[in-house]
Amino acid sequence: MKVSVTQEKLAKALNLIKDIASSRNELPILNNILLCTDGGRLLIAGTNLEIASTQYIGAKIDKHGSITIPARLVSEFISNLPSGTVELEVKNEHLHITSGKFSSVINGVVADEYPELPTIDEKTAIQYEIDVEDLKKAIIQTKIAVSSDVTRAVLTGVYWHNHEGSLYLAATDGYRLAEKRLAKSNDEVSAIIPASTLSEVSKSVGEEKKITVLFDESQVCFRTGDMEIVSRLIDGKFPDYRQLIPSNSETEIVIKKADFSRVTKIAALFARESGGGITVTASKENSLLSIHSIASELGENTSEASASISADGQVTLNSRYLTEVLNIIDADEITFSFNGKLSPCVIREQVKNPDYTHIIMPLKS
Amino acid sequence: MKVSVTQEKLAKALNLIKDIASSRNELPILNNILLCTDGGRLLIAGTNLEIASTQYIGAKIDKHGSITIPARLVSEFISNLPSGTVELEVKNEHLHITSGKFSSVINGVVADEYPELPTIDEKTAIQYEIDVEDLKKAIIQTKIAVSSDVTRAVLTGVYWHNHEGSLYLAATDGYRLAEKRLAKSNDEVSAIIPASTLSEVSKSVGEEKKITVLFDESQVCFRTGDMEIVSRLIDGKFPDYRQLIPSNSETEIVIKKADFSRVTKIAALFARESGGGITVTASKENSLLSIHSIASELGENTSEASASISADGQVTLNSRYLTEVLNIIDADEITFSFNGKLSPCVIREQVKNPDYTHIIMPLKS
Repeated sequence: MKVSVTQEKLAKALNLIKDIASSRNELPILNNILLCTDGGRLLIAGTNLEIASTQYIGAKIDKHGSITIPARLVSEFISNLPSGTVELEVKNEHLHITSGKFSSVINGVVADEYPELPTIDEKTAIQYEIDVEDLKKAIIQTKIAVSSDVTRAVLTGVYWHNHEGSLYLAATDGYRLAEKRLAKSNDEVSAIIPASTLSEVSKSVGEEKKITVLFDESQVCFRTGDMEIVSRLIDGKFPDYRQLIPSNSETEIVIKKADFSRVTKIAALFARESGGGITVTASKENSLLSIHSIASELGENTSEASASISADGQVTLNSRYLTEVLNIIDADEITFSFNGKLSPCVIREQVKNPDYTHIIMPLKS
Repeated sequence: MKVSVTQEKLAKALNLIKDIASSRNELPILNNILLCTDGGRLLIAGTNLEIASTQYIGAKIDKHGSITIPARLVSEFISNLPSGTVELEVKNEHLHITSGKFSSVINGVVADEYPELPTIDEKTAIQYEIDVEDLKKAIIQTKIAVSSDVTRAVLTGVYWHNHEGSLYLAATDGYRLAEKRLAKSNDEVSAIIPASTLSEVSKSVGEEKKITVLFDESQVCFRTGDMEIVSRLIDGKFPDYRQLIPSNSETEIVIKKADFSRVTKIAALFARESGGGITVTASKENSLLSIHSIASELGENTSEASASISADGQVTLNSRYLTEVLNIIDADEITFSFNGKLSPCVIREQVKNPDYTHIIMPLKS
């Protein structure tokens, strides 16, 4: 293999691949990345056997070929080079890298020893074309509710499924739940994608506007013009979460997100010593939402904000969950609704917009 | 006590004091900060018995008094409030804090139980007036060489002393040495200031141009119009380091700092697996400095940069020390000199500028 590429493109591609390749894999070769000529382009790929990520960059190819080299060293080396042309040449399992006054030899392993990259059969796969910005937002808004408890594997992913003519994404950790309607579709998909895969996708998509998503029985593939990520799906049945979403709420509060964030954040400071519990009280007459929290030995706090309120009510919940959802909600005004102290609290981006639904279970107070 | 202050000033002062006050002290009251009216100002202070830091802010005083309250909670609470007026009122060992729609009660402890803040007798103290910017730069440039080895306490501080009509700051960890000439002076000072104290000083000085530094037998005080830091000195005798600075060097390299930084950083990537050792080779004929490093299993690297060189030479040293000093040196061009493989390497900001001297001991190669 003998190719020339620009430092900028190579550094960017390596930076996207290196985390997958250098995540302390038991099989030493998985700490390497694969470099391989592919037509008029250079393919750069890494895998940890659960997920495989590939980037393609334009290259001047003098001689076709391939090699695998340690991911971390090569990516740090290339990213520290000045911008300009980088020459890559394979000689006897060594990769010679030259750029201006910098020259390195990196010891590699032949590509034959690298695991075969997974593929999806396009003819039989369920296929979506999705707007990249919509996908990125949906990932941020659902990943927040994913569980980190590996003993319940289905909850460590985001559930992609069809419901009444739309593709929905949903996640829950048992304490909160996030659901996003992503696109219209009649395809009958039902797949749980690991949250880590979705993070890689968000990071890896470049400037493209559209992304293709393909599902087979056990894998998902995200593909644009110059990247492809293939990941295994999580086995198992996602809980039937829809029954948890209240159909109506007695107390409905419409409030500026910035105001709600600030009073929650301040109340949370005092709630830190007592497990994060804060009590939200809505007063219809005064159009006031007030949050009370107590730090038993340190003191207590009451913070208020103006809001439009349908009925008086009170509920106690974990301030961290509220803070986190307010951080990722994309609206100036939000609706916060609940039915007394024991039923779930519903947060939506604005009144009557059903595209994003976030639910927080109350604390027993 | 009943006072009104602006949120901005109070938040800034609390933020500067809170780290000293909340550093897990054994004596619980040291986790509190002291609030106390002082003429027409509010005094905010914290101490860990080694260092005491005081900030003064303008206040509208309705009733004089004092209290101590938990540092972390009050500083986080105030910094999250919207800008505007904050009312502070002490009632029965509780501090009531009110700002618009936010009201808190924080449980305090009476100020009588707080340790007395240390002071320095100005009449007998050695006194300096120092330019704040010069001081900050000198702290950055000497602190880098301070040791973290608490078993040799004298090396964990910066040595302030008089030499041939100037005030010098020096620090060494045994592997490198930094010396800065700070100001002209004939006062015979000789004091070792803990590096942590100097960090607090750098952080705490506001917009003032000049700072007063006072020394007595066992303490140092840094003072401007609205802040004062008093710290103990480190007991002991600082090593006689001047003998280590070579008086002349055979190989003297003048090189752009940016070039030297880049080749060092790249060489360091390859040196990581072998304890950081890199070999610098200077070629007078080619006007080239080259750095070679080997990662035994991974590969090797040679990086070159143009330089003006007085004589050929070669030396091996720790790339981390070189990277760190290049990061804090304040010049476009630097001088790097050495006398063969075994004597110390000297780095200076520019030829014939003796104000800052940095020395790195070579590695045996």
